[in-house]
Amino acid sequence: MLMRSDILTEADGEAVAVDNAEAAGACLFVCEHASRRMPERVGDLGLDAQALASHIAWDPGALAVARRLSSLLDGTLVHQRFSRLVYDCNRPPESSGAMPEKSEIYDIPGNRDLSPAERYARTAALYIPFHDRISAILAERRAQGRETVVVTVHSFTPIYMGKQRDVEIGILHDADSRLADPLLAAAAGGPYRVARNEPYGPEDGVTHSLRLHALPYGHRNVMIEIRNDLIGDEDGQRVVAGYLADLLLRGLEASAPEED
Amino acid sequence: MLMRSDILTEADGEAVAVDNAEAAGACLFVCEHASRRMPERVGDLGLDAQALASHIAWDPGALAVARRLSSLLDGTLVHQRFSRLVYDCNRPPESSGAMPEKSEIYDIPGNRDLSPAERYARTAALYIPFHDRISAILAERRAQGRETVVVTVHSFTPIYMGKQRDVEIGILHDADSRLADPLLAAAAGGPYRVARNEPYGPEDGVTHSLRLHALPYGHRNVMIEIRNDLIGDEDGQRVVAGYLADLLLRGLEASAPEED
Repeated sequence: MLMRSDILTEADGEAVAVDNAEAAGACLFVCEHASRRMPERVGDLGLDAQALASHIAWDPGALAVARRLSSLLDGTLVHQRFSRLVYDCNRPPESSGAMPEKSEIYDIPGNRDLSPAERYARTAALYIPFHDRISAILAERRAQGRETVVVTVHSFTPIYMGKQRDVEIGILHDADSRLADPLLAAAAGGPYRVARNEPYGPEDGVTHSLRLHALPYGHRNVMIEIRNDLIGDEDGQRVVAGYLADLLLRGLEASAPEED
Repeated sequence: MLMRSDILTEADGEAVAVDNAEAAGACLFVCEHASRRMPERVGDLGLDAQALASHIAWDPGALAVARRLSSLLDGTLVHQRFSRLVYDCNRPPESSGAMPEKSEIYDIPGNRDLSPAERYARTAALYIPFHDRISAILAERRAQGRETVVVTVHSFTPIYMGKQRDVEIGILHDADSRLADPLLAAAAGGPYRVARNEPYGPEDGVTHSLRLHALPYGHRNVMIEIRNDLIGDEDGQRVVAGYLADLLLRGLEASAPEED
């Protein structure tokens, strides 16, 4: 496979989707792992249906929560329409996690010994258009003098490598914790077990999107990780999204730049 | 720097150029290191004029030879319009050589500790369009049932790390030596010191373009390396291009697929 058209056919449609493009709010929501859809020509990568439905293929519930946040806070949402098994848009092409041969306990046969042509085609088809779209949105907003706060929305599996994870919501940040700090402060004593840079953090290479789009421009930013058993159905998604919307409003207010 | 437009301005023009697009011959010539032009916004990467004119920035003479070959053998030529110091289009994004911090004896300050945003922007601006163009040309020719032979044209420095290189022309190949073998046979006893996979070879990661575009499709292919002191002026370029054109014709004939 070589061209991006060898990865995505016309029937597959675009790699990237944008919801609420004309939103008036400051938040730009990003969901890199929104979907477990596999491009027709890529097939199942040698995985069974159970693996293809699991957290290795996507972040279950994350898109639904991101959509609710986009609606509640009137923010634009950019999401990837294909599974991270094909290309994980929160990883740069030089990372072994971009097209992983293994994820948690699952071997991914279709990602083993990928040829340069296949790596290239996936990068061109999925990674570049995704981040180009976010770049373009941010550049236009900067040109308009509009403030943007970048919020990436993820979910994580409650049991990883056989071990239960107790944290329920992770507030992750890279070098810039202007927004994460007040979010954590506001979450203290609340209904969820919320923790900083858990169940993993920037040292694990998970802040790629923030490092691409927010840090170089000084946009306030945060990565939100939700344990996926909390958002497995619409009720859970509604409850968590409502909680996070409130938390974000408080964090945004507390970290707002002072007016001149 | 984040968007591809942060690397190339309108004044810089396109990353890729195609000569002789309507050529009727079987060869598609590729010149990844054709130019030492630096994009306006990238500047000099902290290098002085001597370094920016040296082989670390481009393959001196290679474009001129490739253009003569394109003309002599009526083949399309695709070449990169910007220096490999910004992005080396014969390296995948996961290679440390794609945006090298050091090349031969030169430190490249402007490539040190590149941010993810900068790496992304360079990849999107220079690497992806270059290989997309080649992919598109090859795909169209395959759709038309036209045969293509991929020939990449490079030059190398006569003195590397203080050591003289005796080889004058390298015939490089990856797993497929169908064309390289008869080229080497035809060169034996001729006027140049011609050697297989010298002064470096596929184990050094230099066959990326062949691996992207030729090997997956069964196109015959070869990478030609010319010692750059042989092609430092127009006379040398003319002589070497004439020699190589003849050699290629003989190699192509000897390796031609049998007619059904």
